[in-house]
Amino acid sequence: MIDSAVLFRIGETLEVRKSAAAESSYASGLFHKGEDAILRKVGEEAIEVMLASKSGDKLHLVREVADLWFHTLVLLSFRGLGPGDVIHELRRREGISGIDEKAGRNVAP
Amino acid sequence: MIDSAVLFRIGETLEVRKSAAAESSYASGLFHKGEDAILRKVGEEAIEVMLASKSGDKLHLVREVADLWFHTLVLLSFRGLGPGDVIHELRRREGISGIDEKAGRNVAP
Amino acid sequence: MIDSAVLFRIGETLEVRKSAAAESSYASGLFHKGEDAILRKVGEEAIEVMLASKSGDKLHLVREVADLWFHTLVLLSFRGLGPGDVIHELRRREGISGIDEKAGRNVAP
Amino acid sequence: MIDSAVLFRIGETLEVRKSAAAESSYASGLFHKGEDAILRKVGEEAIEVMLASKSGDKLHLVREVADLWFHTLVLLSFRGLGPGDVIHELRRREGISGIDEKAGRNVAP
Repeated sequence: MIDSAVLFRIGETLEVRKSAAAESSYASGLFHKGEDAILRKVGEEAIEVMLASKSGDKLHLVREVADLWFHTLVLLSFRGLGPGDVIHELRRREGISGIDEKAGRNVAP
Repeated sequence: MIDSAVLFRIGETLEVRKSAAAESSYASGLFHKGEDAILRKVGEEAIEVMLASKSGDKLHLVREVADLWFHTLVLLSFRGLGPGDVIHELRRREGISGIDEKAGRNVAP
Repeated sequence: MIDSAVLFRIGETLEVRKSAAAESSYASGLFHKGEDAILRKVGEEAIEVMLASKSGDKLHLVREVADLWFHTLVLLSFRGLGPGDVIHELRRREGISGIDEKAGRNVAP
Repeated sequence: MIDSAVLFRIGETLEVRKSAAAESSYASGLFHKGEDAILRKVGEEAIEVMLASKSGDKLHLVREVADLWFHTLVLLSFRGLGPGDVIHELRRREGISGIDEKAGRNVAP
């Protein structure tokens, strides 16, 4: 089976880069620019996912989803959170059908 | 350590729901509506992530990121892909700094 | 020539609906829900514009752009602004080439 | 009253720039890059509108809405449409309350 621990390694790397100099890495630069710069990237990568899906190029789609996940990990780290929090939430939902889960929350229209 | 295999279990569940009746689950309904309905959800969940981050509510943010990841998994499944493809791509990038990786691709402005 | 004063009439109507009961109209309901609900609609309509363009259906595209403009007018009204502010800004840019204008501002990457 | 004919002048300018050399203007460059580049800008400007609203800076918000409208005009021109089509659609809806209008269409959830 593929080793999904990479998400946790990325989370740990981001913790280090958060306190490093802005010019030391792409992620450090994003952390220094702050929340809006990170949110902009999350939004832009979601757009790229949409365009990649429409392009029909599967490899392109995989890369854009990876970019999107990566930038959500940057956002989580910026907020003092990490991949484990999302994994924990996804595990919490197991056994709850999507429909029941949606019905149980106050979902945005 | 937290068990991130939940992503693969979700991927397997989605494969089953893809061929099930539309009304049998939330995901089955999305698969039947098709690509645009799934892309709409991916885009909407990215918006929710942005608003949740701005709200300052960490639990809210975690839930919206989980929603976003879930809907990208639905999209991947719709396209005949799965979480392993994204994990594989993220592992491929390990050892490549974000900046080098970005520089090596033809990145959208 | 087509009468573009409709934008100003919508602006005036929105001012009235802003102080009306939430259930009195679609716009009044949005104003009562507040900024996040309005921003969510702006973002969602932008997604619809993207999907409509990809669909190749011109009438669909026109309707979604109209929806997007309408919801930006709701947002402007919520913030004490109106269509005249945007028209004024667009007129200010006339005679400035797009490239010069972009170069003159601190534009997000 | 402010002269909203600027929207039509922009529409006419875009028609000229559509057939001009890519390097002759910002808009010509976008037309040459094609639909995805234009859609990317529409989506990104919608994100900027959201972030500008959250910033509380009214002038910033006005500029981002102007950017968003401008890029929807580029998209319309790319598709052989123009501002008159949107104005026509908005006028058609006058007298129809937003709620009735929404109810009368097959609206995305």
